[in-house]
Amino acid sequence: MIGMQVDVRAIIHEGAELTDKALESLIPTPAVVPASIHGAMRHSVFAGGKRLRPVLAYQAAVAVAGSIPAGISHLGAALEMLHTYSLIHDDLPALDNDDLRRGKPTCHVAFGEAIAILAGDALQTQAYEVLAGLACPPAATVEIIRLIAQATGTVDGMIGGQVLDIEGEHQKPTPELVQAIHRAKTGALIRVAVVTGGIFAGATADQVARLDTFGRKAGLAFQIVDDILDITQDSAQLGKTAGKDLTADKATWPAVFGLEQSIQDAARLIEEAFAALEPFGDKADGLKAVARFLVERKN
Amino acid sequence: MIGMQVDVRAIIHEGAELTDKALESLIPTPAVVPASIHGAMRHSVFAGGKRLRPVLAYQAAVAVAGSIPAGISHLGAALEMLHTYSLIHDDLPALDNDDLRRGKPTCHVAFGEAIAILAGDALQTQAYEVLAGLACPPAATVEIIRLIAQATGTVDGMIGGQVLDIEGEHQKPTPELVQAIHRAKTGALIRVAVVTGGIFAGATADQVARLDTFGRKAGLAFQIVDDILDITQDSAQLGKTAGKDLTADKATWPAVFGLEQSIQDAARLIEEAFAALEPFGDKADGLKAVARFLVERKN
Repeated sequence: MIGMQVDVRAIIHEGAELTDKALESLIPTPAVVPASIHGAMRHSVFAGGKRLRPVLAYQAAVAVAGSIPAGISHLGAALEMLHTYSLIHDDLPALDNDDLRRGKPTCHVAFGEAIAILAGDALQTQAYEVLAGLACPPAATVEIIRLIAQATGTVDGMIGGQVLDIEGEHQKPTPELVQAIHRAKTGALIRVAVVTGGIFAGATADQVARLDTFGRKAGLAFQIVDDILDITQDSAQLGKTAGKDLTADKATWPAVFGLEQSIQDAARLIEEAFAALEPFGDKADGLKAVARFLVERKN
Repeated sequence: MIGMQVDVRAIIHEGAELTDKALESLIPTPAVVPASIHGAMRHSVFAGGKRLRPVLAYQAAVAVAGSIPAGISHLGAALEMLHTYSLIHDDLPALDNDDLRRGKPTCHVAFGEAIAILAGDALQTQAYEVLAGLACPPAATVEIIRLIAQATGTVDGMIGGQVLDIEGEHQKPTPELVQAIHRAKTGALIRVAVVTGGIFAGATADQVARLDTFGRKAGLAFQIVDDILDITQDSAQLGKTAGKDLTADKATWPAVFGLEQSIQDAARLIEEAFAALEPFGDKADGLKAVARFLVERKN
């Protein structure tokens, strides 16, 4: 019914708007004391993110319930707060030492290192306060919180992936290391966005398992595409050949599996991800469309 | 029945042991990948903390239920993880820049700044994973998570207090500022430890309100005593008079209210805190004993 008529740009745009509205209502303005921390949180949260994790959560809920459930934008906002906290801390001088993100000064450049550290901390804290207020049955809320904490933790979660990345610097990357980093650092939060979107909408155990498979495979595909785009961009910008980039000791998919294989892996993973959604029928068209959009993007 | 026979040192010792056992089982060892982050988390969590927040939670539960409920040590462990995360981040070069805590190298000195930032992050994350697994009804778990996130957040919570402290440096402290910092920076987590201990044990709404009053007043009394001890120690160590310390621009209770008034305030607050526990009868003797021990300590 929806079938080929899915307008993926409209889906992403509407999902981003829904998320921004929730974030606007949930994060205090600098009029609330202490001003600096709220200013810093807003600086990074409203720095132009595409809200892809929230959009995936909403479309997973549509796959289960047929429409976007009321109140799910608070789940989306919490996922985005967690994503933003990890970016703020990643950008710090002691970690990646980045001055710019999406063309704007990073949090520590704009507000100083102390406030940036605390703003990251506070976004994590606020994510859990928001999750504890979700409009779904308490047992589902507890499960959502447990899964999100796991996905952002040290064992196969977001922080663990960052640590593996730091520990792996200046070493020749192995296939196992690249897979572990990708699964944990970016994959886990994408996967849990899809799964918790489904749980919020009342998914059965079988539906949760299928969304989990979809999220795991699609999340890895996105990351491989990211790695491929990095190379393409590097080649254009730096005038280096892609082949030369591949020899660098960077823990990327193309660096260990080659560019050709990477392209094939991303395509295969997306097909496997789609196969897991088969029983959802047309209701999963939005989720599929967003996933296809992400792996076919050019930047 | 328990009355005057309460052995406060035994209560604190047993509570600390219970907490340590839970922390030992809940935080992965460095044998779990990635090794460095788990080593760093354990370094700071097992650096000799007195586990006072957990002990207060357990004794609040005893005030409600008459004995320490099974499984409450996971609540205690989560409170201690949150306390430790705040200490790790507070000690960072960009914040207080402390090399030693309790005579041991701080986390960033032992493991580097990047891992210390992530270890603090991870302890916060793991606290919520542990809370989501608490052995109590889902609705109580959700309420516990909501209250703890609030107490550690930016608005009148732990992070907010740290920010007020940073913003207030190099300014003459006002009574309002000192009260706000004390309420938020240390008071909020102590208060919520008492309240959530009660909720875990099945407290009624009236009992929760009474524990909240107790926790708020006792938490402020502890902090005032801390401030008083700081002055006493400074006087002994630096050979300065207490009066001279009082003129320093430090946001402490004695600095704005004077030493004599501070001693009176702490005593008055503890009496008011005890009055709130009146309906609990003998069952609150442990909680009172721990509170009295904390305000009468000499270091």
